[in-house]
Amino acid sequence: MMDFGQHMPERDEIQLVDVLHALADPVRLQIVRHLAGSDGDASCSTIPLPVTKSTASHHYRVLREAGVTRVRCEGTHRYHSLRRDDLDARFPGLLDSVLASSAEGSLPHA
Amino acid sequence: MMDFGQHMPERDEIQLVDVLHALADPVRLQIVRHLAGSDGDASCSTIPLPVTKSTASHHYRVLREAGVTRVRCEGTHRYHSLRRDDLDARFPGLLDSVLASSAEGSLPHA
Repeated sequence: MMDFGQHMPERDEIQLVDVLHALADPVRLQIVRHLAGSDGDASCSTIPLPVTKSTASHHYRVLREAGVTRVRCEGTHRYHSLRRDDLDARFPGLLDSVLASSAEGSLPHA
Repeated sequence: MMDFGQHMPERDEIQLVDVLHALADPVRLQIVRHLAGSDGDASCSTIPLPVTKSTASHHYRVLREAGVTRVRCEGTHRYHSLRRDDLDARFPGLLDSVLASSAEGSLPHA
């Protein structure tokens, strides 16, 4: 089923367990690392992922619904960005430690 | 099935996604917070959890197999402790940020 809804939690609604679950996947960590290294937002078509388009859509949705990313629609394109300010405000240091850890070759699929 | 094996990854084998997955659960976060506040290790019988014994066993196993905790058997008792040194070495700042974030009432079941 396509997910045309764009549910995204407000900052205060973001739950730690949801964020940890969203980050607990090699593909989603790959997306998060790509977005962390992007200026502004990125079209999903520019993020190379080793999965099918529908699987990628699932991963983008998990990240968005957990509050890790936001999405902006422009025509038929979707542009994703990290909610770094919201995550840093809710869970200080978490995103930075995950990004630093995942950048050091500790990802099995990285 | 009871898990009599005591598989536990070596420090270098601990994977970020496994640790994030292990932490992405309210009951397991409750265990981790309890262990973080304990001197040394703690018998599972002293950690109050809102789940059945077999469900608790599952959670302890997930934590151990991910490398978050270690277990020491003494007679019929099992004593759990956080692998804080190993986690801090592998993923600097991760455990501290998760503990600080989970302590601030951001857990739905805390």
